[in-house]
Amino acid sequence: MHTLQVSLGERSYPIHIASGLLDRADLLAPHVKAAQAVVVTNETVAPLYLQRLKNTLEKAGVSVIPVILPDGERFKTWETLNLIFDALLGAHCERSTPLIALGGGVIGDMGGFAAACYQRGMPFIQVPTTLLSLVDSSVGGKTAINHPLGKNMIGAFYQPRLVLADIATLDTLPERELRAGLAEVIKYGLIRDPAFLVWLESNLEKLLARDRESLIYAVHRSCANKAEVVAADERESGERALLNLGHTFGHAIETGMGYGAWLHGEAVAAGTMIASELSRLLGWLTADDVERVRRIFSRAGLPVVAPGLGVARYLELMRHDKKVQDGRLRLVLLRSVGQAVLSDVAREDQIGEAIELMCT
Amino acid sequence: MHTLQVSLGERSYPIHIASGLLDRADLLAPHVKAAQAVVVTNETVAPLYLQRLKNTLEKAGVSVIPVILPDGERFKTWETLNLIFDALLGAHCERSTPLIALGGGVIGDMGGFAAACYQRGMPFIQVPTTLLSLVDSSVGGKTAINHPLGKNMIGAFYQPRLVLADIATLDTLPERELRAGLAEVIKYGLIRDPAFLVWLESNLEKLLARDRESLIYAVHRSCANKAEVVAADERESGERALLNLGHTFGHAIETGMGYGAWLHGEAVAAGTMIASELSRLLGWLTADDVERVRRIFSRAGLPVVAPGLGVARYLELMRHDKKVQDGRLRLVLLRSVGQAVLSDVAREDQIGEAIELMCT
Ligand SMILES: NC(=O)c1ccc[n+]([C@@H]2O[C@H](COP(=O)([O-])OP(=O)(O)OC[C@H]3O[C@@H](n4cnc5c(N)ncnc54)[C@H](O)[C@@H]3O)[C@@H](O)[C@H]2O)c1
Ligand SMILES: NC(=O)c1ccc[n+]([C@@H]2O[C@H](COP(=O)([O-])OP(=O)(O)OC[C@H]3O[C@@H](n4cnc5c(N)ncnc54)[C@H](O)[C@@H]3O)[C@@H](O)[C@H]2O)c1
Ligand SMILES: [Zn+2]
Ligand SMILES: [Zn+2]
Repeated sequence: MHTLQVSLGERSYPIHIASGLLDRADLLAPHVKAAQAVVVTNETVAPLYLQRLKNTLEKAGVSVIPVILPDGERFKTWETLNLIFDALLGAHCERSTPLIALGGGVIGDMGGFAAACYQRGMPFIQVPTTLLSLVDSSVGGKTAINHPLGKNMIGAFYQPRLVLADIATLDTLPERELRAGLAEVIKYGLIRDPAFLVWLESNLEKLLARDRESLIYAVHRSCANKAEVVAADERESGERALLNLGHTFGHAIETGMGYGAWLHGEAVAAGTMIASELSRLLGWLTADDVERVRRIFSRAGLPVVAPGLGVARYLELMRHDKKVQDGRLRLVLLRSVGQAVLSDVAREDQIGEAIELMCT
Repeated sequence: MHTLQVSLGERSYPIHIASGLLDRADLLAPHVKAAQAVVVTNETVAPLYLQRLKNTLEKAGVSVIPVILPDGERFKTWETLNLIFDALLGAHCERSTPLIALGGGVIGDMGGFAAACYQRGMPFIQVPTTLLSLVDSSVGGKTAINHPLGKNMIGAFYQPRLVLADIATLDTLPERELRAGLAEVIKYGLIRDPAFLVWLESNLEKLLARDRESLIYAVHRSCANKAEVVAADERESGERALLNLGHTFGHAIETGMGYGAWLHGEAVAAGTMIASELSRLLGWLTADDVERVRRIFSRAGLPVVAPGLGVARYLELMRHDKKVQDGRLRLVLLRSVGQAVLSDVAREDQIGEAIELMCT
């Protein structure tokens, strides 16, 4: 088992990474010092893993209150969040009752936000079961729900007490979701870890074949990158923003196409292509660099062209995004392959040109 | 002008207390470094003070986005909170846009929770306009909304950058609201400041007559007490719980009677009488002590008997309250007049007896 520590002073917490951790009562018990715990999951994940987690908790003397939500990004709303609150209040949960999120990023983001708000904060544990949530959303304490006018607009910074990363849960993950998760893995290589990018270029097929050791390595190295960034900048006032490579464009794609049509990772891949093209227009990347980025995404089966929403619509959607500061678009761009920067030097016509060039 | 500092490390902030502060652009400007600011207020307070605050902000070069909510505790809900989010998103507010709450505790609690959640946190300023919000809710960073199953169940700890306490706003406060606010003022004397209680016993009539100097003194001393407690225990893991004297019983009264029937301060006064009676049953207060508590509340025009909901209903409602730990009721009681303790020694039959004795 690998263990990483996210260093955030009194809010520090461990990430345990291995196969089969769902059965490890010894890892959960130190963080669940209560007679009962809430497990928030969804209709897809519950039949696969809820009973096992329940058995493990019961072994540790903890009885489980399950909250089973509908599945899907379109349910990442206040209405669904309220289902969690109703269950917590219905079961008379106390502020000391731990809440465990068992599922992908949607469950983690909603479970975390519910834990942050219920009685102003209850202990929170992440048990991520998608590649995206293993390498990204479960680490770092961002929680949120969507608003009809924008993704992740309502939320909190709220750190978990523990992340239990059971790689074996990836066995049941649909192919398309695995590929979407790879977009965020590749992202770490692009923004700050060029050696990891080289490793990915050599091992992509093994990851796609779900080779367990390769997956453990990729999750571990991704989490290590994310943990470093988060430790340096918990509330995204600086370096942490670099994790949003491709995301401002990506969120525009997700919103513009209607939540759920494009997976988050797919939108991030296409968005990263626009960001790469813009970096080329600014003279930072060569055409070969852009081609290298395109190749790795395309080998991972991810979209490398963006949907043709029209430049005006992209810009409108991006202005709603929270990466706007004093009205000027601040974007994460690539200074080189392996080094991202946050910059507002791109003029609107250049942004528009990059979008045009990358759209179908 | 008096200025107090709430000492919370990098989250420290000043409380300015005086008459006429709504006009002081110089005090607001250092905390509103943006081209626009949101002012959240309600239909009652807006006609009284919104234009003045707007003029002051405009003098500082800040344009105002007003959000005018319906008035009342029954609107302290998710639906109303969403009206704030709709306005913020509609006006393309950024995470750097400051949100100013202008009103009583309901506006402060909702405005603060909206500021905590919008894009995971925007700068927040409190401009309290009721006695209760001046002496209690605007200081300390507790924000919340209600849930049908319990008061203040959903919220966040989120500190303001500034509290602007303009005592002149009390001129227009309805008599009943002024008296309700006095319940929280008296509370500070009862739980930790016996000398202040003696001062209150001598100056209560002046406060009721809205003598400005007396009000400034009472607000200042109340805020100083609250600031000390909050600085020592921001997230209510210890001493801060003592601020809830009378509140567990009070919340049961508020919920049991239907939100809004009893004012918060009225419920706290009656709840404090039950807590005092229970403290007497435990041998901590004398009958004379209880009488002293009754006299000061009754001189302030506050209820000193609780509504007859029945003991079973009280206990049921109290179990929903967040002051329950591991199933046992932890209550704030009085060791002596001027010194509160958090204790779970009271047996359920004693709690029931105290309720019976204090009910109509
Ligand atoms: N908080 C953050 O820092 C952060 C970072 C990135 C993304 N996100 C958020 O994460 C969300 C996307 O997360 P996601 O990609 O995990 O999507 P998801 O949670 O919707 O999961 C994808 C699908 O896989 C299913 N599933 C989950 N685990 C499975 C398993 N082991 N076997 C079979 N099926 C399984 C889910 O039920 C769902 O249908 C977005 O809402 C995004 O905004 C948050
Ligand atoms: N956050 C905390 O730490 C904390 C502490 C105590 C209470 N609270 C909360 O505060 C709320 C009660 O606050 P409140 O007593 O201020 O009630 P409130 O906000 O409802 O205000 C009382 C009434 O006075 C009106 N009003 C406000 N200012 C006025 C003015 N200057 N002139 C005329 N009318 C005015 C309001 O519109 C309202 O009708 C409750 O929801 C309670 O839960 C929070
Ligand atoms: Zn992402
Ligand atoms: Zn109170």
